[in-house]
Amino acid sequence: MAPTPTRADKFSFGLWTIGYNGADPFGGPTRAPLDVVHAVEKLSELGAYGLTFHDDDLFAFGSTDAERQTQIDRLKQALADTGLIIPMVTTNLFSAPVFKDGGFTSNDRGVRRFALRKVLRNLDLAAELGAKTFVMWGGREGAEYDAAKDIRQALERYREAVNLLGDYVTDKGYDIRFAIEPKPNEPRGDILLPTVGHAMAFIETLERPELVGVNPEVGHEQMAGLNFASGIAQALYQGKLYHIDLNGQRGIKYDQDLVFGHGDLHNAFALVDLLENGGPAGGPSYDGPRHFDYKPSRTEDETGVWDSASANMSTYLLLKERTAAFRADPEVQEALEASRVFELAQPTLGEGESYDALLADPASYEEFDSGAYFNGRGFGFVRLQQLATEHLMGARG
Amino acid sequence: MAPTPTRADKFSFGLWTIGYNGADPFGGPTRAPLDVVHAVEKLSELGAYGLTFHDDDLFAFGSTDAERQTQIDRLKQALADTGLIIPMVTTNLFSAPVFKDGGFTSNDRGVRRFALRKVLRNLDLAAELGAKTFVMWGGREGAEYDAAKDIRQALERYREAVNLLGDYVTDKGYDIRFAIEPKPNEPRGDILLPTVGHAMAFIETLERPELVGVNPEVGHEQMAGLNFASGIAQALYQGKLYHIDLNGQRGIKYDQDLVFGHGDLHNAFALVDLLENGGPAGGPSYDGPRHFDYKPSRTEDETGVWDSASANMSTYLLLKERTAAFRADPEVQEALEASRVFELAQPTLGEGESYDALLADPASYEEFDSGAYFNGRGFGFVRLQQLATEHLMGARG
Amino acid sequence: MAPTPTRADKFSFGLWTIGYNGADPFGGPTRAPLDVVHAVEKLSELGAYGLTFHDDDLFAFGSTDAERQTQIDRLKQALADTGLIIPMVTTNLFSAPVFKDGGFTSNDRGVRRFALRKVLRNLDLAAELGAKTFVMWGGREGAEYDAAKDIRQALERYREAVNLLGDYVTDKGYDIRFAIEPKPNEPRGDILLPTVGHAMAFIETLERPELVGVNPEVGHEQMAGLNFASGIAQALYQGKLYHIDLNGQRGIKYDQDLVFGHGDLHNAFALVDLLENGGPAGGPSYDGPRHFDYKPSRTEDETGVWDSASANMSTYLLLKERTAAFRADPEVQEALEASRVFELAQPTLGEGESYDALLADPASYEEFDSGAYFNGRGFGFVRLQQLATEHLMGARG
Amino acid sequence: MAPTPTRADKFSFGLWTIGYNGADPFGGPTRAPLDVVHAVEKLSELGAYGLTFHDDDLFAFGSTDAERQTQIDRLKQALADTGLIIPMVTTNLFSAPVFKDGGFTSNDRGVRRFALRKVLRNLDLAAELGAKTFVMWGGREGAEYDAAKDIRQALERYREAVNLLGDYVTDKGYDIRFAIEPKPNEPRGDILLPTVGHAMAFIETLERPELVGVNPEVGHEQMAGLNFASGIAQALYQGKLYHIDLNGQRGIKYDQDLVFGHGDLHNAFALVDLLENGGPAGGPSYDGPRHFDYKPSRTEDETGVWDSASANMSTYLLLKERTAAFRADPEVQEALEASRVFELAQPTLGEGESYDALLADPASYEEFDSGAYFNGRGFGFVRLQQLATEHLMGARG
Repeated sequence: MAPTPTRADKFSFGLWTIGYNGADPFGGPTRAPLDVVHAVEKLSELGAYGLTFHDDDLFAFGSTDAERQTQIDRLKQALADTGLIIPMVTTNLFSAPVFKDGGFTSNDRGVRRFALRKVLRNLDLAAELGAKTFVMWGGREGAEYDAAKDIRQALERYREAVNLLGDYVTDKGYDIRFAIEPKPNEPRGDILLPTVGHAMAFIETLERPELVGVNPEVGHEQMAGLNFASGIAQALYQGKLYHIDLNGQRGIKYDQDLVFGHGDLHNAFALVDLLENGGPAGGPSYDGPRHFDYKPSRTEDETGVWDSASANMSTYLLLKERTAAFRADPEVQEALEASRVFELAQPTLGEGESYDALLADPASYEEFDSGAYFNGRGFGFVRLQQLATEHLMGARG
Repeated sequence: MAPTPTRADKFSFGLWTIGYNGADPFGGPTRAPLDVVHAVEKLSELGAYGLTFHDDDLFAFGSTDAERQTQIDRLKQALADTGLIIPMVTTNLFSAPVFKDGGFTSNDRGVRRFALRKVLRNLDLAAELGAKTFVMWGGREGAEYDAAKDIRQALERYREAVNLLGDYVTDKGYDIRFAIEPKPNEPRGDILLPTVGHAMAFIETLERPELVGVNPEVGHEQMAGLNFASGIAQALYQGKLYHIDLNGQRGIKYDQDLVFGHGDLHNAFALVDLLENGGPAGGPSYDGPRHFDYKPSRTEDETGVWDSASANMSTYLLLKERTAAFRADPEVQEALEASRVFELAQPTLGEGESYDALLADPASYEEFDSGAYFNGRGFGFVRLQQLATEHLMGARG
Repeated sequence: MAPTPTRADKFSFGLWTIGYNGADPFGGPTRAPLDVVHAVEKLSELGAYGLTFHDDDLFAFGSTDAERQTQIDRLKQALADTGLIIPMVTTNLFSAPVFKDGGFTSNDRGVRRFALRKVLRNLDLAAELGAKTFVMWGGREGAEYDAAKDIRQALERYREAVNLLGDYVTDKGYDIRFAIEPKPNEPRGDILLPTVGHAMAFIETLERPELVGVNPEVGHEQMAGLNFASGIAQALYQGKLYHIDLNGQRGIKYDQDLVFGHGDLHNAFALVDLLENGGPAGGPSYDGPRHFDYKPSRTEDETGVWDSASANMSTYLLLKERTAAFRADPEVQEALEASRVFELAQPTLGEGESYDALLADPASYEEFDSGAYFNGRGFGFVRLQQLATEHLMGARG
Repeated sequence: MAPTPTRADKFSFGLWTIGYNGADPFGGPTRAPLDVVHAVEKLSELGAYGLTFHDDDLFAFGSTDAERQTQIDRLKQALADTGLIIPMVTTNLFSAPVFKDGGFTSNDRGVRRFALRKVLRNLDLAAELGAKTFVMWGGREGAEYDAAKDIRQALERYREAVNLLGDYVTDKGYDIRFAIEPKPNEPRGDILLPTVGHAMAFIETLERPELVGVNPEVGHEQMAGLNFASGIAQALYQGKLYHIDLNGQRGIKYDQDLVFGHGDLHNAFALVDLLENGGPAGGPSYDGPRHFDYKPSRTEDETGVWDSASANMSTYLLLKERTAAFRADPEVQEALEASRVFELAQPTLGEGESYDALLADPASYEEFDSGAYFNGRGFGFVRLQQLATEHLMGARG
């Protein structure tokens, strides 16, 4: 049976995930709105430790100050009652008509100013609620048509906005870091900063790059056919994994937001192995929230909502068990050795070796038997993958 | 009729492109080998200004020093006879069995050392031939299976290699910059640094980031469903477009390497507009070689090879004409204005405006009419795209 | 300039296309509802000849009989006033919560019965309005999870439904044929009958296959990476192209429903060449409505809606001109000949030739010089594609 | 541990699979040729029951009659020595330069005649070896450019060829059926009959449709983003699953030919459930060979080849165990019931019910509570998928 989640597992959920009403491009809602207090209570009961939200999830766009405050107070009370925390907050710059061409990079300067104001206000709320991460998904920052958007100017405006936000949290003394969430497309034809790579490259152009990391989402990278676990490994390598969105996606198509593990199961295994065990050669990894950004299928009623919330956590914990057994299996260790996986941690040059020394080493070239790799010196990768598959399937004790 | 190319157009071709023998995963060669001297003569005749090559294109892997030198001398003579130049050189770390798990990031340390030696030797040749750019396509740096490759260690080894190469060209005083060529997959299941974004992010971790840029290829980014022109715009924004590979791809599938313009024609229009005119709002762009990295279809004989080489240049020049007319059309200028495309170049904050001033500006939020964007304040993007389409089709004089 | 559409061009639009309010998975409406009378008037003015609709487009799901009749009467009057016709009608079995697991193939038998009743009622309306084609898009007939749907039983229920509808129109004497519209996914993870091929195969299992054809949509096939023009050619070959949905899609991603020609322009050229000229070797083609099933981008206001409607027709007519010039160009005819395109129309066996005669013909095998195809007997396909490209771009007079 | 295969499992392998030498578009062979006798011996030892081959796998294209006969005799002896059988044979119409534009549908009539002769000769061999299925993969039947191929004529030529082959086996009394293997692209830009659906639709146009079915390959359908298990279900529904190719593919990219189960594991589970248990609602399924059409990764030496061959069988057998446990689990049965999965087997109309009776039944429409499906009457599909996931992972006893 699947293990039971506890708060030590650091599972968090977006309010918009369990609160998804089922509306999609071809149909209206199939579920009634979910009250935030009920959401907090149920998540607490199921074993989560955190709730996250966009401003518009908690109080509708255009709420009066009083309406807004009422909802904030109700949330605070529920948190106090349950012990749940708010590890992350984000702002919705994509649903209202005003953002139809984006927020920070709308061609319309008035919209850009409005967007900044909306985010600044929500940053204050994030700080007030103790959130440590502020996610920015620029879902409408993009275009359908190449002539419609000057990409370099859009990046310049994005940079202007993030620099300003960095100044703001620094000056205010907020203990908050930003995490940019990439996505290749949908709802725009092409979205700015489409992958983890593009976002990390952009971050280097900022005035305070140390304040900004990425919030990669399983399905978003997979919508570009990219290997999610590899992308996370690069983000870790560059010290930029500030938050993570877990869910499931079945290949290159619309954004499915399935339950974690209901998509590419092999890659989910590799991801959990990386997050929990540091990947093939071990090492430090990620200590933040395991955040689920998924949608309960439109076919479900409220029972299905909570079943699906639990399913995310169960699958994660099962994969954690499976990857631990994989690492502990002596045959796996032997196979990793045979595949020279650990040898990759060894520098290519000897300690203190210069290129001159390398050039002077005949063993490296003149006497190196490159022909031995024909019909020999196989890497044994398929065997390794089969061992991983059998562990994933619980078939090796 | 399509314009005629001249050397001022800076068109260059890989020796492996026109020399492609037609072998693919399901069939052997359909064309005889192409001699390099003949290649230089034909390219010169057709209007190209440059030839590029991998070491193994010019002299087979495992050549003796004498065989190698003969081929180099023959190439030099052909260059002298025709005036063609070698703007770029690259090294093949992917074809020979020894590189079956990659070069710089093979799990096998001996292979990594051999790879470095091979590249160092070819760097000397590049410098000797006056190449200004050294492209690195790490086509075998990757894996099919997640357990087979520790991605963080692979990046660390890649970094070690590029740092060493940077030291080498610096110490030797070579006037050469490096350009990393990303690709998401094929021939490996997943390739390290799969997109322009991932490569640019990685470059920031290097000791001499200024020496290293990217060499994006149309089809490679499109194999991940990404907008190529947008990726190039980000590379330009970050000052990293050191070289470019032009070709055609029809969607997410195997690497097709079609003639430039025989793939996504709308995006090719946007790309040429960006390279030649600086994109929607103008501005400086790219001054380097227009390098074609394509494959003449396997169905063709030598006549088809040269027809296809010419087709690349013709289509580029036609698109250059079309984009110039697009820019010059007053209706287009009016439409760009109406779509507020130029407004994006205007900073979101006023000159010297602080966030406090923004927060104190009621016009930006309290009095801002966000409701006006419902059923109004349309952006006119579809009209703009239709104008672009009609210019692309030569339908607006 | 682009040609002006006339009714002879047989352009039709779905009421849901120009009436699309801009709602998508990440945002609400950006445009007010469009009244059907206004829609008819505008389409008539722009040069369309037909309007099509789902029942729910004209009168909301759950309308009373009186509300329904009012809307029907208003539509009829508008048709009478303008001369527009209703060439096609369809039924919405996907938006209301009751259809969350599909209509004809919902696991829930009550829903299936309700769906049949809804369609029967709308068939009567289609007949009353003179529609000749009844389209069935089974967008919710599918599943996200393999265990959730027994595909064979789903096909059996689909078949039961279509057989019943066939009986119904036959018995009633309605002059109506059915057209199944395939789509691979979205809004379901996988949709039943995902491509033109699957739909045509299924049709052969029906009791009245002659009553049922396909209604392929450009973007739907391209969402599976398939060549749309080739799919249409097979549908024509099998006599099953009963209707067609024209729009634009930029690769494998969510369903974009762009303007026709704003997606894959090369394939749009090939499609119009097929529909208007019969394709490479000519021959009879398609005589029905040129129906646009697209969405005006969410960024647009009503001006953008009508601009986009016009853009569909303009691009189609421009492509018609370009393909006519392509066919008329003597160099193209020569190139087609050289590529042996017409030779494919010649049977492989001679008239009356048996396999015995073929086996006895040494020229076909024993004496056939298969080696001549190495480095020779090239097909000249790249040149042909370049000629098509230049015609598409209006660059050959 | 994974179960051990026996001949009763009917596992077969292509000679070209275990014999794959590692050549790919960017590199030459990494393994020496595999002798057919050795291949038969090893497969027998590992538990397979059958070997399949293309003519060119057994004797090189252009072999003399003597060379050909030697190889046939060696194969026969090995079969006699081991008890392995040849359940299927196929012909290579794609590797040699002569087939660069296809075999049955090459624009070049001489090539078409040669192709027919080659196939007829190999059909005789298939019959001689007792093969019951003759697979036809038309990998080169296609085009890169729309103007290069008249699709309708290509289909007509394909039909002419298959009709002739049908006459031939009928007249000769061969106990052989044909199975067309679809693929969307690679090595051609687009391939004729790109999916299971297109192939089944085409088969209906043949003179002897009963002689011709399909041979779907996991990766080929998944290269179009299609659900493989659903496609197989439709093939079974239409009585056309004559053979099957098992392997692994990780999304929409080049044809990977990984080990079965090393790709989309959820869909592999559903497939084995369908083949072994008849799918969600049970019922008859497929009784033919479980044929692996995969490639041992290029990184492997011969040890890796046999490890990978075994991995295919082990994973299949593990999945067979897992799906059996899934079916046997009372909670799964209850969940399937709750999801109304079995209800789909119930006809929508009552026995003998006419559409008039349906129209007269108020419970089906007038009194039907469609509103109950809002916020209620959930289908419980996510729970079902989680149960499947846990069984797949061996986590439910």
